[in-house]
Order: sequence, then structure tokens, then C-alpha cells
Amino acid sequence: MTTSYSPVNPPQRLLMGPGPINADPRVLRAMSSQLIGQYDPAMTRYMNEVMALYRGVFRTENAATLLIDGTSRAGIEAILVSAIRPGDKVLVPVFGRFGHLLCEIARRCRADVHSIEVPWGEVFTPQQIEDAIKQVKPRLLLTVQGDTSTTMLQPLAELGDICRRHDVLFYTDATASLGGNLLETDAWGLDAVSAGLQKCLGGPSGTAPITLSARMEEVIRRRACVEAGIRTAAHQDGVDEMIYSNYFDLGMILDYWGPERLNHHTEATSALFAARECARVIGEEGLDAGIARHKLHGDALLKGIQGMGLETFGNLEYKMNNVLGVVIPEAVNGDQVRKLMLEDFGIEIGTSFGPLAGKVWRIGTMGYNARKDCVMQTLSALEAVLNHLGLRTTQGAAMQAAWDHYSERC
Amino acid sequence: MTTSYSPVNPPQRLLMGPGPINADPRVLRAMSSQLIGQYDPAMTRYMNEVMALYRGVFRTENAATLLIDGTSRAGIEAILVSAIRPGDKVLVPVFGRFGHLLCEIARRCRADVHSIEVPWGEVFTPQQIEDAIKQVKPRLLLTVQGDTSTTMLQPLAELGDICRRHDVLFYTDATASLGGNLLETDAWGLDAVSAGLQKCLGGPSGTAPITLSARMEEVIRRRACVEAGIRTAAHQDGVDEMIYSNYFDLGMILDYWGPERLNHHTEATSALFAARECARVIGEEGLDAGIARHKLHGDALLKGIQGMGLETFGNLEYKMNNVLGVVIPEAVNGDQVRKLMLEDFGIEIGTSFGPLAGKVWRIGTMGYNARKDCVMQTLSALEAVLNHLGLRTTQGAAMQAAWDHYSERC
Repeated sequence: MTTSYSPVNPPQRLLMGPGPINADPRVLRAMSSQLIGQYDPAMTRYMNEVMALYRGVFRTENAATLLIDGTSRAGIEAILVSAIRPGDKVLVPVFGRFGHLLCEIARRCRADVHSIEVPWGEVFTPQQIEDAIKQVKPRLLLTVQGDTSTTMLQPLAELGDICRRHDVLFYTDATASLGGNLLETDAWGLDAVSAGLQKCLGGPSGTAPITLSARMEEVIRRRACVEAGIRTAAHQDGVDEMIYSNYFDLGMILDYWGPERLNHHTEATSALFAARECARVIGEEGLDAGIARHKLHGDALLKGIQGMGLETFGNLEYKMNNVLGVVIPEAVNGDQVRKLMLEDFGIEIGTSFGPLAGKVWRIGTMGYNARKDCVMQTLSALEAVLNHLGLRTTQGAAMQAAWDHYSERC
Repeated sequence: MTTSYSPVNPPQRLLMGPGPINADPRVLRAMSSQLIGQYDPAMTRYMNEVMALYRGVFRTENAATLLIDGTSRAGIEAILVSAIRPGDKVLVPVFGRFGHLLCEIARRCRADVHSIEVPWGEVFTPQQIEDAIKQVKPRLLLTVQGDTSTTMLQPLAELGDICRRHDVLFYTDATASLGGNLLETDAWGLDAVSAGLQKCLGGPSGTAPITLSARMEEVIRRRACVEAGIRTAAHQDGVDEMIYSNYFDLGMILDYWGPERLNHHTEATSALFAARECARVIGEEGLDAGIARHKLHGDALLKGIQGMGLETFGNLEYKMNNVLGVVIPEAVNGDQVRKLMLEDFGIEIGTSFGPLAGKVWRIGTMGYNARKDCVMQTLSALEAVLNHLGLRTTQGAAMQAAWDHYSERC
């Protein structure tokens, strides 16, 4: 350690990619609060408040609503490894990268993984999913609500009834969609939902809110296995085989958040403060008002991009409110545009994965950055960069399209 | 969400338990920095700086030195699930709760788990461990350096040579000890070490620094398996069976931190900023100076407690610098004392687990709270509470013992 380092001092960036985005300053301030002990009455009260607040965000009455200490994929893995017994059949409708991720995590849980696919830019009809359920007869249906890799939003409202009819457990990954698009955990019959803070919720990555239905909780409780060292005579093993992870054992995590306050991990208090503030801010605005705000600014961006004469990617009927795929014009190099946006304007827009790599930019309007000034700055910077690289647009048309959209709606 | 919540506003506490402790205010300020993108050049530079800084903290040249996004037990599980193949024999010397935790996590990894035990308050001799290695012939030796449940510090310096002779991989959990007690990753022949920020490093729980030797990295690389969705033709599966976790797959995590910058999780940027600041502050003080500070204040607390006429727990020869076990006098109720300390003085001291529950308090002097004022406040408050509950001490003796200790050494 001979080199000398300065305190962290990140450059100012406007993060308009598919996430992470700039955190709400109130969330950053919450994270700078001093720590308290794990079993301090003030701490357990904050934990209970977090549970109550996220019941509101998830639109659920589920008692089992809490945080997993890790990034959004930690939330996914906690649910999958706790619910899937080796050999269990799972069905994954894949419409982008995060569907593949669900297959991958399920495979690591030693599930018998079945998937169906549609081309990137499309989503599934309920009938397609029901047909696959009839054929595969899975124990779990694993879905992604909003897949940022394609910008598509899978309709979920009808899937809960289908799952009930076929006795299938219904999970969705709402990391990219929650708070910016409608999600009704209870009304749609979801058995498990996981999320992250770094998209529409306006916080940093690092903790994953999840919720579990009573039915899912029962499935997990059947695998109960309390670790030696804190185990007492009152703890009994479940009838099903144990969960093949200690960190992600939702049975023990439920008892940590529940009245038993079973000692499990040391709660990531600063991340919990962040999560609480994200949900508090959403409650202050109102969840529906926040979703409407995401739609307003997402549509304004879309109008501006169309006004610039650029093509968009995917079926717009099923686009998420909070992210837009923009086809990279052949006349420019997509990475050069992103570099100029970042270096000369301090604005980050996203690249793409897999089949869309090099072909599509992804521009987000989410969380704290679902704002008019963010949309206007991004459009004007993008147009300036494109013009600078020789791509002509009709002067003023893009900005006017966005202005018109706002003046019609505000 | 009908209830209205105020922003987080935790009560002022002096956290003198076995951890978490109060975070250094510089670390809290670092966490309130605004976010930047995952692949922003500023971000990847910070990631490289974190790797370099923790090589200093772990005293290692290991390239594979990075953060796991989760609490300290996430760091443990990432190493164990990545290193242990189902059926592998592991040996765990258990001298407290966290040895049991290693057995437990290894069991979830489907290891063939063998353990040896000493009574709480003792540690193992190298000979005892070598004898067990000869008998069990494990693939991995899983140790805890400092177990806060007993306050004991297991000597590790001679174990690396023993492990080499018997071709055993050598891991230690240094969560509670790192930064406050000597740890020499390379000189002691350690193949893997994991830690957390919330003890001697002076930060919040939520991210886990780890380091892996080249030998351990090789073991993990043999299990390579890159997830579908981001997999390219250049990715090849390893010769050994895959790692049964996606989130904790150290192969992919190494490629995320390495030059490939493989997309895995979304880095918990605020936690990374915290980890960087913890290590930066340690570098500023000097690691050895920091360890000496932990010893100075740990010993002052010990002298004060002895001066008060209280008994200590465990073999003091092997006590960690940063935590002390105090036998609860029969004349008082341990929980009542802790309650008065917290409610009337704002000071938290720790209770105990398992065989020590109700019998021992654990008082920490670590990280930001390894300071004279913290020691003096804690001693004087504890004595006041004990006197208030009818337990007579020699007036002034405890405080004088601490003062004497400081005046001899400062």
C-alpha cells in the first residue's frame, strides 16, 4: 500500500442507460446515516417498516416481504434455490437475456429446465404459456416481467389463473419493471416476486426486495433446516430435503425478519436504509402517480427519437415504460456515439447484448431520472452527436416532438 | 401505503458489541456519493483500485482479490460453493459458532464434512490440526481466524505449511479479525480468505472482500461455466463439474472484475465506495499501526474490566485484540444491564450465543470505535449501571487501571 489514494469522487454523470441510474439524493443521504445494532429496537422497527413499505410497492398482503442482502440476482437466486428441489420441472418463457438467466440459475439449482422462446422484441401470449404448461407440467413457472435486454414487458395479469388451474407456482423477476410499470402481486396471483433498487426504484444496487405468497412460504418451510450453532431443541427439520444454500435459505431469512429474530447474516444496514427511503419516496409520490410519470417521460423520449427520424426496436405495444431500444443508424458507429455522449455531455446511454449487440442503443428514463430535463438533455445531446458525425436530421423536429408531447399532457 | 413515514433518523448509539460497530464517518460520506455506470471508465478504475487496496489489507499479491456483493457470509459461501465439489472431504476445526457455520455452509455444498472441537474459550494447536488432517485426508481445511462468539483468535501462521505437505487447500474466515489482528495471506500460505467491513475495517455490512491464491483460482477455473445469454463461442466449460450457484460463481465474478469485464451482477456501487474508503483509511493509518491501535484499546478495556473486579472469559493468551468476553456477575441480570446501557447511556454491548448465552457479555473495541473515548465511556457507564443495580466496585479503580494502561503506552 505505497500508492496514495484520494477519497472517492466520481465524475458527474447523467445515467440514461437501462440501469443503474442516478440514485435519488434522498436515498444517498439515507445511506450516510450512522449504523445501529442489529437487534436495537430502532433497527427491528426499521425492518418492520421496510416490510410494510414493500407490501405497498409490490401490492400485496404477503407477510413474507423483505430484503435479500445482495444485488437483484441475489433475490432471484434466493427464491429459486429455496423453491426448487433438485429434479423439479420448471418452465421459463425466454424473451431476452434475463429469461436465459432464470434458466441458468434454475440449472444451478439442478432443476429440470424447460424453456420456450420468442424472437427478441416480442412477448408471449397467455395461450402460448398455457400450452407449454400443459405439455411440460412444471412445478414452477419462472418469468421475467420487464427484460431490459429487449425493452419488452411481458403481460402477467392472466398467468396467475393459468398457474392455479395447473397447480404451478408462479414467479416473476420484476427487477427492471417494478415502480415504473404496473405489477399486482396479489391480484395477479403471483407466488414470488423479486426486484432491485437500481432501476425504477431510484436507489443503488445492493439489496433485493422480495415477496412470497403463503403458498410459496409453505413450500419453503417444508425444507426447514436451522444451522448448527444457533439451533435449539425447538427447531425441527422439514419433511422436504434441505435448501442447498445457507446464505439464500429463505426459511432462516424469514425467521430473521420475523418475530423469532433468528440470527442469520448481519443485516446490510446502509442498504436497508436505502431501500426504506426508496419505498418511502414512492409512497410519498404515490405508486400509480410514479408509474404514470414513467409512462409520460418514456413516451416523450419515444416521440423525440421518432422525431429525430430514428427507428425503434421491438413491438412498441409491449414496451416497458422505462426503457427504449433505438436502432443504431448504419451511418454511425454505435460505440463512438456512446463515447461522445459520455465524454462531452456526461450522459450515459446503453449498449446491447447478444443478438442486439452493436445494433441497438438502450435509453432509460427511470426512477429519479424519469424527468423532463433528463429527457430533453438526452435528446438534444444525442442529436448534436449524430449531426457532428454527419448524420443529418430535421433541425428542431425531435425536440419539438418531445415538447408537443409534454404540452399535450402536462 | 396509507401510513406516512419520516426519513430514516437512527438514534445515536455507541456500538461496543462484537460488531457491527459505528462506521467511520468518512465511509458514510463515501457511500453518499452519486452513482456512475457499471462500465464507466471511472467505475472500472475504482474497481481496480479496490483490488489493489485489498491486496494491501490481506497482505497478498493475489490477482484474485475483489468484493462479493453481500454480507460477510456471502463471501464465505462464494468461496465454499466455488471450491467444494459435492462429495469433497473438508475438515473444520470448530472453536465457536462460526466454525459451526463453516460446517453448515459446507454441508449445503454437499461436502463430506469432518470437524474437530475444543471447548469454547480455547483454540487448536497446529499439531491437533495436523493430526486431524492425517486422519481425515480432506481436500480443504476450513478455519475461522477470529470467532467473536468466544473472542478467541486461532493461530494460523503454521497451518499453511501443514496444508502444503498434505496437499490441502487452506481457507480462513477473517471477518471478525482482519484489520485488528495480524493476518498474512501469502506468508501464511492461505489459499482463500474472506472478510466483511463491519468489524475492524470500520464500515457497514453489505460487501465482502475476498482473496484467492493462484492455486485456488485454478481449482475454480476447472469448474468454468459461463451463463447462456452472455456466453460466446470463446467461452469453454471446465473439466470439473459446474459450481452450483450462479450468484456465487467465482469464475464468472473473476471475469467480471478482470479484463474481460464479463457482465454478471450489477455491482453494488455504494458498497464498493464504502469498501474502498475503509481500505483507503487503513492505508492512511498504516495496517500495522491500526492493528497496534486495536491492541492498545483492547488491552485498556481488559485492564479496566479487571480493575472493576469482573472476570473475563476464555484463554487471554489467544484473545482477539478487538473483543473481550466478560463473565456476567451472578448478582445481576445480564440483559437488564445491557438494556440500561443502551437506554440510559446509548451504548450497546453484546450478548452471547449457545453455551455462553446469559453467561458472558462481549465488548468490542474495533474499527472506528477502537478509541480511548469509547473505552472510557463504556467502562464508566458499565460501572455506573452495575453500581446502580447494587453491585459494589472499588470506586475509581477500573477507570484508573485504564488510565494507567494508556499513560504507560501513549
